[in-house]
Amino acid sequence: MSSHAINRAESETGDPLLLTPGPLTTSKSVKAVMVHDWGSRDATFLKINEEVLARLPEIIHGEETYVTVPMQGSGTFAVEAMLTSLVPPDGKVLVLINGAYGHRAKRILDIACRETTAYETAEDTPPDLTAIDEILKNDPTITHVFAVHCETTSGIRNPIEAIGKLVARHGRRFLIDAMSAFGALPLDARETPFDAVAASSNKCIEGVPGLGFVIVKRDVVSGAKGNATTLVLDLHDQWQNFEKSGQFRFTPPIHVIVAFHQALKEFWAEGGVQGRGGRYAENGKILIDGMRELGFRTLLPADLQAPIIVTFHMPSDPAFVFQKFYDGLSERGFLIYPGKLTVADSFRIGCIGRLYPKDMRAALEAVRDVLTTLGVATPLRKAA
Amino acid sequence: MSSHAINRAESETGDPLLLTPGPLTTSKSVKAVMVHDWGSRDATFLKINEEVLARLPEIIHGEETYVTVPMQGSGTFAVEAMLTSLVPPDGKVLVLINGAYGHRAKRILDIACRETTAYETAEDTPPDLTAIDEILKNDPTITHVFAVHCETTSGIRNPIEAIGKLVARHGRRFLIDAMSAFGALPLDARETPFDAVAASSNKCIEGVPGLGFVIVKRDVVSGAKGNATTLVLDLHDQWQNFEKSGQFRFTPPIHVIVAFHQALKEFWAEGGVQGRGGRYAENGKILIDGMRELGFRTLLPADLQAPIIVTFHMPSDPAFVFQKFYDGLSERGFLIYPGKLTVADSFRIGCIGRLYPKDMRAALEAVRDVLTTLGVATPLRKAA
Repeated sequence: MSSHAINRAESETGDPLLLTPGPLTTSKSVKAVMVHDWGSRDATFLKINEEVLARLPEIIHGEETYVTVPMQGSGTFAVEAMLTSLVPPDGKVLVLINGAYGHRAKRILDIACRETTAYETAEDTPPDLTAIDEILKNDPTITHVFAVHCETTSGIRNPIEAIGKLVARHGRRFLIDAMSAFGALPLDARETPFDAVAASSNKCIEGVPGLGFVIVKRDVVSGAKGNATTLVLDLHDQWQNFEKSGQFRFTPPIHVIVAFHQALKEFWAEGGVQGRGGRYAENGKILIDGMRELGFRTLLPADLQAPIIVTFHMPSDPAFVFQKFYDGLSERGFLIYPGKLTVADSFRIGCIGRLYPKDMRAALEAVRDVLTTLGVATPLRKAA
Repeated sequence: MSSHAINRAESETGDPLLLTPGPLTTSKSVKAVMVHDWGSRDATFLKINEEVLARLPEIIHGEETYVTVPMQGSGTFAVEAMLTSLVPPDGKVLVLINGAYGHRAKRILDIACRETTAYETAEDTPPDLTAIDEILKNDPTITHVFAVHCETTSGIRNPIEAIGKLVARHGRRFLIDAMSAFGALPLDARETPFDAVAASSNKCIEGVPGLGFVIVKRDVVSGAKGNATTLVLDLHDQWQNFEKSGQFRFTPPIHVIVAFHQALKEFWAEGGVQGRGGRYAENGKILIDGMRELGFRTLLPADLQAPIIVTFHMPSDPAFVFQKFYDGLSERGFLIYPGKLTVADSFRIGCIGRLYPKDMRAALEAVRDVLTTLGVATPLRKAA
């Protein structure tokens, strides 16, 4: 047992700080609005919901041609709704894979009996544009391309803009899972052609979990009648009900939506994508610089690293036991994330959510402190 | 304009009282626990979630043989997960219909390409047991029977116990949508045979909306591999992940689940189904007696009426305009519900949620006051 007193960080509401890919630490004010009840079909809630739906397309500069269709559940519910509703039964999807979320999309399409072809690269490698070009040239039956903006498996930023332009040049449709990137990494529909993008309430907009959404071109969703493989995940039917009545078809997670409404207000107040993404970039830089100083190695080079979540190689020092490292940080008020890589033994630290540079510095102090407690020499010895 | 001051009712948190079939008025303490953040894969949240899952089967006295599989989303997400995961592709379902939720189940099964046969009765009429017996006798290809416990379309209580016994006698499987009844109307797995029952967080357990769940026999869900038509609604896969890791496959609505945990504590403290159902029965009696005194007519006779939500015929007095009636009650702090019947013009008033006899009496006072304001004579004139 270490004899020194332990500093414990906490959020505004006395909770551990979540250095994860989400759910995230949210502001006190976002959570405080949930201490009320609303009727799901009453005007007060409907107005809040309408404001949420109306403003989300502004984030991609798509307010002219895109609509928001919310989907109860997690982000994966929105992704499954997007894929099964927008890809028709006779469609064929080129799925770009470099992590768990690409694989998940493929699995969703397989279950839905949609034809796919996968182009997989290693978890630390973005897809090659020439290869995509070749695949599309050689297979005219491919109707859609699917990609993940930031693959949180590794934290890699995929070249969405270039892929979008390439896909459009081939006259195919582009679907994006932007889950952990949405609101922090720019995505501009005026520059990057795409049919739809899926994201969720509990990532970079800093709401609480329970709602996914798809921002989709109005003419695409209006033409998607009859594609869906389920009732609840039918994006066309959900959209049509909003057009008709302004209401959800089935009970919405009201408290989650009201918190999301507040989170969006705070997002705009911070300066939208530029402000939010700027803070995360600063968080990420402090984290990476500080961890490198301690001897940790990142999986990704700087040009591939999104300022969302950072993957670190597991140190080779036998005194470094991940569970003890996790518990030590948890005791100090920081929750980190295990690795999900297949290519290397690793762990992850997120830099999104209601976290500021001071929190990242405190996290680094905690990391140093835990390493000392575990008897791990710093800077870490270089791995063989 | 009326010249007298308007009394405005409000909940503990200053909100209108929700006299609806849910989402409902919840206690202040249920909502207050949401003002925190948790890591979705951290031990603190996992323990809370485990307690929720473990205790739910006690409500049906099924803790020996049933497990809870939660499903992100609304109650309909849980119903669709139950139907598409537990009915195999070569199954055939007898769907008992006497309202919108029976029709919805049929639609879910149609979309999933499961064969069905429907037995429909009017919205104010429970299914006839002899008729069910005949259908099952004449069609041995029927593998499952589906019924709704309390059809909130009308508020009718369907004879679940008798149906369950009959279905078992024919060696078929029984699936129940108990959404608005669960926790208030008794359902005892030791007496009534059934494979699974679906419900949600925001009905009689008095949590906030965002989570559905299916309480299912362990051997039934373990044998359901490969049935599901989607990834996210795959009950078997969701269950298996809990068995393996105690975790959700995809981000759970953490705040909703923590509120549900608190709501369950308060449910048990009130005496479980007996206490909760007893309060609702008292609420319902006060409501019906009072409304009858004002001249309103209920759709259902007492023996078919569940103490959940009550359907009233629309008065024939031309001074009674529903939107004005709704607005007048809303102004007085009470939100009621429009009708959903096809058989008659009607509206509905719920008696579930954190409402007490005093609230029902205040609601009746408000109804009387609004009628006076609208110039509707009370007691109402008898309709022709």
